Amino acid sequence: TKITVLKGDGIGPEIMDAGLNILSVFKEKGLFDYEISEELVGGAAIDAVGKPLPEKTVESCQSSDAILLGAIGGPKWDDCKERPEAGLLALRKQLSLYANIRPIQVSEELVHLSPIKEDRIAGTDFVIVRELTGGIYFGEPRQLNDTEALDTCVYTKEEIERIMRAAFELAQTRRKKVTSVDKSNVLATSKLWRKVAEEVSQDYPDVTLEHQLVDSCAMVMITKPKEFDVIVTENMFGDILSDEASVLTGSLGVLASSSLSKTGIHLFEPIHGSAPDIAGQNVANPLSMIYSVTMMLRDSFKQYKLADMVDEAVKKVMQKGIMTKDLGGNYSTTDVTKYIREELI
Amino acid sequence: TKITVLKGDGIGPEIMDAGLNILSVFKEKGLFDYEISEELVGGAAIDAVGKPLPEKTVESCQSSDAILLGAIGGPKWDDCKERPEAGLLALRKQLSLYANIRPIQVSEELVHLSPIKEDRIAGTDFVIVRELTGGIYFGEPRQLNDTEALDTCVYTKEEIERIMRAAFELAQTRRKKVTSVDKSNVLATSKLWRKVAEEVSQDYPDVTLEHQLVDSCAMVMITKPKEFDVIVTENMFGDILSDEASVLTGSLGVLASSSLSKTGIHLFEPIHGSAPDIAGQNVANPLSMIYSVTMMLRDSFKQYKLADMVDEAVKKVMQKGIMTKDLGGNYSTTDVTKYIREELI
Ligand SMILES: CC(C)[C@H](C(=O)O)[C@@H](O)C(=O)O
Ligand SMILES: CC(C)[C@H](C(=O)O)[C@@H](O)C(=O)O
Repeated sequence: TKITVLKGDGIGPEIMDAGLNILSVFKEKGLFDYEISEELVGGAAIDAVGKPLPEKTVESCQSSDAILLGAIGGPKWDDCKERPEAGLLALRKQLSLYANIRPIQVSEELVHLSPIKEDRIAGTDFVIVRELTGGIYFGEPRQLNDTEALDTCVYTKEEIERIMRAAFELAQTRRKKVTSVDKSNVLATSKLWRKVAEEVSQDYPDVTLEHQLVDSCAMVMITKPKEFDVIVTENMFGDILSDEASVLTGSLGVLASSSLSKTGIHLFEPIHGSAPDIAGQNVANPLSMIYSVTMMLRDSFKQYKLADMVDEAVKKVMQKGIMTKDLGGNYSTTDVTKYIREELI
Repeated sequence: TKITVLKGDGIGPEIMDAGLNILSVFKEKGLFDYEISEELVGGAAIDAVGKPLPEKTVESCQSSDAILLGAIGGPKWDDCKERPEAGLLALRKQLSLYANIRPIQVSEELVHLSPIKEDRIAGTDFVIVRELTGGIYFGEPRQLNDTEALDTCVYTKEEIERIMRAAFELAQTRRKKVTSVDKSNVLATSKLWRKVAEEVSQDYPDVTLEHQLVDSCAMVMITKPKEFDVIVTENMFGDILSDEASVLTGSLGVLASSSLSKTGIHLFEPIHGSAPDIAGQNVANPLSMIYSVTMMLRDSFKQYKLADMVDEAVKKVMQKGIMTKDLGGNYSTTDVTKYIREELI
C-alpha cells in the first residue's frame, strides 16, 4: 500500500507530520502496513523546482493507493508568475478528482465555538458534494486583455450525472435527502444541472431530491443548517457554499475533506487553508489532518476499526481539555498529537 | 414628479400599498408632490398580458423620476415558458440598472433576532455594491442542449470601472474602506476586476482598498461581519453574498435596496422575495417597502428631512412593540402601517 504525501505550504508540513505520526502507530503495531512517498506541490514545489505541480508528483500520485495533502498557497507567492493554486487545480484535473466531499458536523463538545446561536446549529450534520473538475474553473475559451475578460462555464451531461450519482449514493447511507443547488432561473448550465438531477433521481427512489437556488442556499445554511443532509452543487457554487458552511461550526480546524477520483485514487485533506500567519509556531490544530487520515482509512482502505480507534482517542483527549488554541485550549500541535498517540498505544 | 410603481407578485402588492400609504402623507400635507403610474411586471404581467416585462412598463419607467418595485416570482409560474424573473433581468438591462446597493445594518432593537451570536453581529454596518448588468447573467454565447450547456461570463473594463466608482464614492461617505471581492486565483474576469479596482483606487486616496476571494468573503461575513464597510463585487458573487448577508441580521423584513441607473432613474425595492407562502394574509412586514420609500426620498429626491421623519416614526412604533410576526410582534401589515402613519400626521 502506497500513500503519496503532499505536505504543501504554511501549516501543511506540521499538521501532516501530526497525521503521519498517528497513522504510524498502526504500522508499528502491525495493524496496517504502508509506505510513504513524499512529493512536492504548491509553493513548496515552486520554490524547489520552479513549478507548482512537478511531473514526478503526478506520477507518484498515479501509482499510489491514496493521497494525503496538507495545504497549499500563501502570500509569499502572490507575485509569482506561477501560482501555488495552479498546482492544486492541475492536480484535480490530472487525477480526475471529480467529487469533493465535505462533511459539516458540530460535536457537542465544540458547539459553543460556533458563531451561530446554539439552538440553530446544534445537531447540524450535512455533507457538501462539490463537482471539482468542471464548470467555470476549467471552461474554454478564457480570455484576458487590458479592456475585456471572459470565462466560460461548461458542463456536460456526463459530468453532472457522475457527481449526482456520488451524491445520491452518499445520501443512501445517510438521511436520504439530496439538495441540488443551482441557479436555474438564470444559467443554461444550471438548467441542464437540474434536468440531469431529476433524471438521476429516478434511479434512487429511496432518496428525496429537492432543488435550491444558490442564493437561497446561502441563506438557509445560516438560518436552518439542520435542514440539509447531502448538498450537491457545481464547482464555483461549491467553492463558496462549502467555505460558508465550514465556519458555521466554529471549529474549522477539525474539518477534513475527501476528493474522489474515478481512478479510485482518492485525495484527503483538511478543509482549511495554509494559514501562513501561524505557520511554524507549533500552534496549528492537527485534528483536521488526523481526521483526513481517518477518512482515508475508511474510504480508501476500508479500515473502519482503525479509524474508529483514532476517533475515540481524539474524543478522549478533547474531553480532557487537551486542545489547541483555536478550540479554546492551550496545547501545542505536537502535544495534542502526542496525547492522541498515547491513547492509541 | 412621476414614480412608476411595480407591485409584482406574492406579498409585493400588500407591502407596496403600505409604502405608498406612508408616502401619501407627504402629498396630503403638501410637503412632497408626485404622481404614480402603476405598471405590470413579473408573474402579474405574465398573467395579464403573457409576458413578464410589457413595453408599456419599460416606457413608463423611462419617463419616470424613480421606480418602486414590490417583489417578483412564485411557484405559480414555475412551469411557464416565460418566467417572472426574466422580467426583472430585462428591466435591469433595459434601464441600465448597473449598481445594486444593499445596506446591511443591525439595529439595537432587532439584534436579538439574528442567528449570529450577539457579540459578533452587534454593530454590523456594511453595504454590498453588486454589479447588476454584466457577468454570467448576460454573457454570450449561452447554449443548452440535452448533453451540454454553456454560459459565458464577460466583463469590460468600463463596466468594472463604473461599479468601482460607485463603491468608492459610497465609501467616501462612510468609513472609507472598500473590500473588492473576486476569484482572481482562478477566473480571468476576476483578474481584470482586481486590476481595475487597483487603478480606480488611485483616484480615491482617502479610501482603503482591500481584496478578498469570494470563498473567503463568504466566511468572514459570518465570523467577522463588523470588518466590512463597502463590499463591491460582480453580479453572480453579489447575488450569493448579498443574500447570505441579508440573513445575518435576522430581520430580512426590514431591509431595502436601491439599484442605480446611469440614466438617473433609480429603482428601489425590498431585499427579500415575494414570499408566496404568506401572500394575501396581511402578515408581511411592510418595513422593507417603507424603507425602500425612504431610500427613494433620499437618493432620488434629496428629501432627507421627509425620509428622517419616516425613520423616526418607524422607530417609535417599533419601540412600542408594534411589529409584524417576523420581528416577534403580533400586528398585521395594515396595522403597523396605520400606526406609522399616525406618528407622521
Ligand atoms: C485555492 C483555490 C483554487 C481552491 C478552489 O477555489 O477550488 C480552494 O479555494 C478550494 O476550495 O479548494
Ligand atoms: C430573481 C433572480 C434572477 C435575481 C438575481 O439572481 O439577480 C434575485 O435573486 C436577486 O438577487 O435580485
